[in-house]
Amino acid sequence: MKKTQVAIIGVTGFTGERLANILLSHPQVELSYVTARLIEPKPLAEIFPYLEKKTQLVCENFKEEKALKKAEVFFLSLPHTVSFTIAPFLLKGGKKVIDLSADYRIKDTLLYRKYYQKLHKDRKNLKKAVYGLPEFWRAKIREAYLVANPGCYATAVLLVLLPLLKEGIIKDDFVVIDAKSGVTGAGRRALLDYHFSFISENVRAYKPLTHQHLAEINQQIFSFAHKRAVVKFCPHLLPLNRGIMITVYGKLKGGNSSSRIKKAYFKYYRREPFVRVRDFLPLLRDVYNTNFCDIGFSCDRDSVVIVGVIDNLMKGAASQAVQNMNIMLSLDERTGLI
Amino acid sequence: MKKTQVAIIGVTGFTGERLANILLSHPQVELSYVTARLIEPKPLAEIFPYLEKKTQLVCENFKEEKALKKAEVFFLSLPHTVSFTIAPFLLKGGKKVIDLSADYRIKDTLLYRKYYQKLHKDRKNLKKAVYGLPEFWRAKIREAYLVANPGCYATAVLLVLLPLLKEGIIKDDFVVIDAKSGVTGAGRRALLDYHFSFISENVRAYKPLTHQHLAEINQQIFSFAHKRAVVKFCPHLLPLNRGIMITVYGKLKGGNSSSRIKKAYFKYYRREPFVRVRDFLPLLRDVYNTNFCDIGFSCDRDSVVIVGVIDNLMKGAASQAVQNMNIMLSLDERTGLI
Amino acid sequence: MKKTQVAIIGVTGFTGERLANILLSHPQVELSYVTARLIEPKPLAEIFPYLEKKTQLVCENFKEEKALKKAEVFFLSLPHTVSFTIAPFLLKGGKKVIDLSADYRIKDTLLYRKYYQKLHKDRKNLKKAVYGLPEFWRAKIREAYLVANPGCYATAVLLVLLPLLKEGIIKDDFVVIDAKSGVTGAGRRALLDYHFSFISENVRAYKPLTHQHLAEINQQIFSFAHKRAVVKFCPHLLPLNRGIMITVYGKLKGGNSSSRIKKAYFKYYRREPFVRVRDFLPLLRDVYNTNFCDIGFSCDRDSVVIVGVIDNLMKGAASQAVQNMNIMLSLDERTGLI
Amino acid sequence: MKKTQVAIIGVTGFTGERLANILLSHPQVELSYVTARLIEPKPLAEIFPYLEKKTQLVCENFKEEKALKKAEVFFLSLPHTVSFTIAPFLLKGGKKVIDLSADYRIKDTLLYRKYYQKLHKDRKNLKKAVYGLPEFWRAKIREAYLVANPGCYATAVLLVLLPLLKEGIIKDDFVVIDAKSGVTGAGRRALLDYHFSFISENVRAYKPLTHQHLAEINQQIFSFAHKRAVVKFCPHLLPLNRGIMITVYGKLKGGNSSSRIKKAYFKYYRREPFVRVRDFLPLLRDVYNTNFCDIGFSCDRDSVVIVGVIDNLMKGAASQAVQNMNIMLSLDERTGLI
Repeated sequence: MKKTQVAIIGVTGFTGERLANILLSHPQVELSYVTARLIEPKPLAEIFPYLEKKTQLVCENFKEEKALKKAEVFFLSLPHTVSFTIAPFLLKGGKKVIDLSADYRIKDTLLYRKYYQKLHKDRKNLKKAVYGLPEFWRAKIREAYLVANPGCYATAVLLVLLPLLKEGIIKDDFVVIDAKSGVTGAGRRALLDYHFSFISENVRAYKPLTHQHLAEINQQIFSFAHKRAVVKFCPHLLPLNRGIMITVYGKLKGGNSSSRIKKAYFKYYRREPFVRVRDFLPLLRDVYNTNFCDIGFSCDRDSVVIVGVIDNLMKGAASQAVQNMNIMLSLDERTGLI
Repeated sequence: MKKTQVAIIGVTGFTGERLANILLSHPQVELSYVTARLIEPKPLAEIFPYLEKKTQLVCENFKEEKALKKAEVFFLSLPHTVSFTIAPFLLKGGKKVIDLSADYRIKDTLLYRKYYQKLHKDRKNLKKAVYGLPEFWRAKIREAYLVANPGCYATAVLLVLLPLLKEGIIKDDFVVIDAKSGVTGAGRRALLDYHFSFISENVRAYKPLTHQHLAEINQQIFSFAHKRAVVKFCPHLLPLNRGIMITVYGKLKGGNSSSRIKKAYFKYYRREPFVRVRDFLPLLRDVYNTNFCDIGFSCDRDSVVIVGVIDNLMKGAASQAVQNMNIMLSLDERTGLI
Repeated sequence: MKKTQVAIIGVTGFTGERLANILLSHPQVELSYVTARLIEPKPLAEIFPYLEKKTQLVCENFKEEKALKKAEVFFLSLPHTVSFTIAPFLLKGGKKVIDLSADYRIKDTLLYRKYYQKLHKDRKNLKKAVYGLPEFWRAKIREAYLVANPGCYATAVLLVLLPLLKEGIIKDDFVVIDAKSGVTGAGRRALLDYHFSFISENVRAYKPLTHQHLAEINQQIFSFAHKRAVVKFCPHLLPLNRGIMITVYGKLKGGNSSSRIKKAYFKYYRREPFVRVRDFLPLLRDVYNTNFCDIGFSCDRDSVVIVGVIDNLMKGAASQAVQNMNIMLSLDERTGLI
Repeated sequence: MKKTQVAIIGVTGFTGERLANILLSHPQVELSYVTARLIEPKPLAEIFPYLEKKTQLVCENFKEEKALKKAEVFFLSLPHTVSFTIAPFLLKGGKKVIDLSADYRIKDTLLYRKYYQKLHKDRKNLKKAVYGLPEFWRAKIREAYLVANPGCYATAVLLVLLPLLKEGIIKDDFVVIDAKSGVTGAGRRALLDYHFSFISENVRAYKPLTHQHLAEINQQIFSFAHKRAVVKFCPHLLPLNRGIMITVYGKLKGGNSSSRIKKAYFKYYRREPFVRVRDFLPLLRDVYNTNFCDIGFSCDRDSVVIVGVIDNLMKGAASQAVQNMNIMLSLDERTGLI
């Protein structure tokens, strides 16, 4: 049986690299086209020397006509505000597109402009784009031609919050989310801010109350739970490479009830292949280099602390994109991911 | 001028070690007696080889009578529930005692018993003990014979919260404190939990809503600000050695007002040698290996995020103890600490 | 087609854990039996929580009769001097055994005793054991019932040295090997020596000139290259989890000749799936979590520096064991490893 | 008594920063002038926020005339090939100069050109410059106006090798030095090479057999021990911030003799305040943030492994520069350093 051919546009970033690794081992698709901004074509194993003897793919500059011939599914691993200049062409050519940037996540273009400082240039496809959080939008993803892969923080936050808000377990007037992330979340950038000597033995809080993922978080809370919640969010950069832990502090409606919380989570996640509801607070390490999201919690009389963990490059980016692809191609959702 | 002689009882833990380093360089006291549980006396430079050519002190088992002859001020760097078996003797001998355990921090012995699982055995001295947070109890510390050095988390939390609660800036019905700490906070213990391979590339949340430092935090909020605040606290263990960052999420009374917050902090800290109110969110690294506590914050319409950082072994333990000693001996409070 | 059933005896150590991960994803074998010293049986996903929703295997105490029924191939991931008490029974039952301890590596039992402080108890099988370095003993491994999986340092050293010694490129009178390893090389042990605070920002040299892997290194140099070389070896523990880098300093016979060195390596490794000869000095990271060994070098007039890297838990232990299994089962050698 | 005023030219690099910290706490000098390439003057505590409430020094652009008025001793913490454009002016003005670049270390200008790719522009002062390794050139340093502070690797290598070569303990025909360094050794540079994600869980060997410090190493071996030794040197970058460990492999002249080696080291270092000869292999951590060099060794029949450790930013740069200053100013050599 011929394998579906897939492409990565923008393979040299942390996310593109991770995608390449997953897709090279995926038993039912063939990675056939990888691009990056290069002066001249270069073997992928020269860009990532550890791929020597694993692949002979050559990385080249993106060319529209060639792209159409090389693959059926395209992963766009591009900076924000670049994806919407490329996706329309691919979609018009009948291709399926999974965009890992923020370009198709936020339906409200004013909000997009506020957070990403640029006018949205592809409102037509924006309307059709499906938010690629399979646990909540699986049916729509199955039919989609354009999937907007969620932000890393947004993935963790939504998987933790949506069941509790939807089921009315926690109050929506003041939800605190303290997020902790490894440095790959910031992308592969040559800044002193990411120098080993600045990151190690250090912690940095940034964008308090204003992080751009709040846009998609709020939009999804409204779409799915039909609520507006007051979410106070502050991310932190930690001395580690990969992983996001979010610690959520919520006020309980109707008092302490571990069993009600557990029931709410089980309602949505019992059959989910990649969400695990735990009897303990999960460690970051429990999901390292996997597509899992682990969730644990602890209550007192009137409040609950919930801990959710994902690998920011996996469930927070590359492997969730592949999970979406599996759904779009009607494959077993776990293929190549477990 | 003869230097005051000082002693460390329990020098081999992380805190005792740090204390030894500070006191060996302190220009106005002489470290004259150090003890630990040992089979036989051992040069301190054999226990900590990096002290070779720096000190010839010999570490020995604590002996009551000898102790009285060797020093005037005693730092007890002992496990909880051990200090209160030693302090009474030293106090009776007219010595000054700075206890770094929790034994003299909590006035309510029922609460002590709840959090430390043991009956308090020295209620007499407990009553006289002064809580060693100089920024709020300096005058009492100056007169004290027994100082209870605050817990590391408690120090950071109280320095951040007390001005805001006292001045009525934030509401007291739901204050969230997300704390992040390096591994030295857990003491020098040979457990797989602190194995390099378990700590690196990992994060762990623990004791959600139940950490023992809540006892002293609540007591101090009541003593100083005459309030009962609902504090939701969850600490996390991070892949780094030293430092605590706390991120506090509060609801503003009377709306956004950076200037009101700044004013409240300046009221208490402008003249403090070791608290710095910042125009930015401080990094853990800004206070690394110092006695400083740095505080920064950011508001939106109805809430504030405040970040406070200390070095858990310094302002959170050893150097704060030396700051207390400086006050008790009427020395310049900064001696040996800047 | 029924998959071959395989077992891991001793699954809770770093190596056993890695083995379990590889074998759970291996498409042509089924991990059917895992054991450890436990009071009562326990799901593997309880021991390693990240395996939840990935396996339902239960870990139990090793029982001889049950073992025989459960699998055809046994990986012994046990401490030295324990394997030789278990292997004879399995071999007698017609099973194939891959031993990851040192018990069957050293043919000279006096040497074994010298380095491992215990009398060897299974000389009969020791004689038949094949040293599991596929690049040099593939044909024998194919026929073997008992494979002694090489030590981690030995694997790296031999892959670097054997071609150069065999082909007479470097002098054998003084070969220096400086080895650097991550902490998992020391096993999962609750000692202060492996506490995060002791390992991070630290380096430790240990067992200079006397490390036990010298026994198998010297034996293999003699078996394969028919030489006795004077190898000066000193390993170092580094602040990282996984990986070994060896830096070899050799005196050139007959002067500088990059091309001669390259030729020698290509002679042995051009067709090897898991050894890559590089045009640059490889990074540790190039082989992280893979079964590869990468080799690079640089010459001056009369000497050469060669850098070899492996992942100590993979090519240095678990994945090399699976490579051996693949050979023993006549599978494609790369199955489950690329 | 008026303190001597001292200046740092180039305060923003890792070394300049360390110098500032040491000098701010030095009891007998006053740091009075600090410079860097800046658009406009900036408080030092703004560049390094952790210095707030510790200093009010303002950092400005270097101005020749102002410099002469501001200080008596100048530390040049500048890139190679910049120092020799500034030092002549300061020396002419009667100032004492301690240069931390390589500009005045190598007497042979051809060699300088080979390693630093630039013609030397100040041969006059080069001739008078004293190599600032106090353990071997203390008397000359005392009289010097221009001290060339040694390279970090060179410091460690020379302290280990000079006694053994001078006393004829090891053969000079093949000495192997494997060096391991933290990332601060490479300077504060915004390159992907020093990104946390590239450094952590990684090791890199670089400049095998060709590192520029070989020039000063060989020159010093000749100056002091009157020998030419064949030194094979390869440095490695490790996932840590600070520290250098060198592992030296030497062939013994006249057979094993721990006592002869110990005697040789004691001859040179017994009275040295900052070199410690150990009965064990020292850890990197033993000298962390100190001016010490620790040395330990282990022999077999015909060879010796010696381990030497320093902090690359301290004894390898900043604190050794202050040690030199103390000597030049006839202060107790340990002032401000212990």
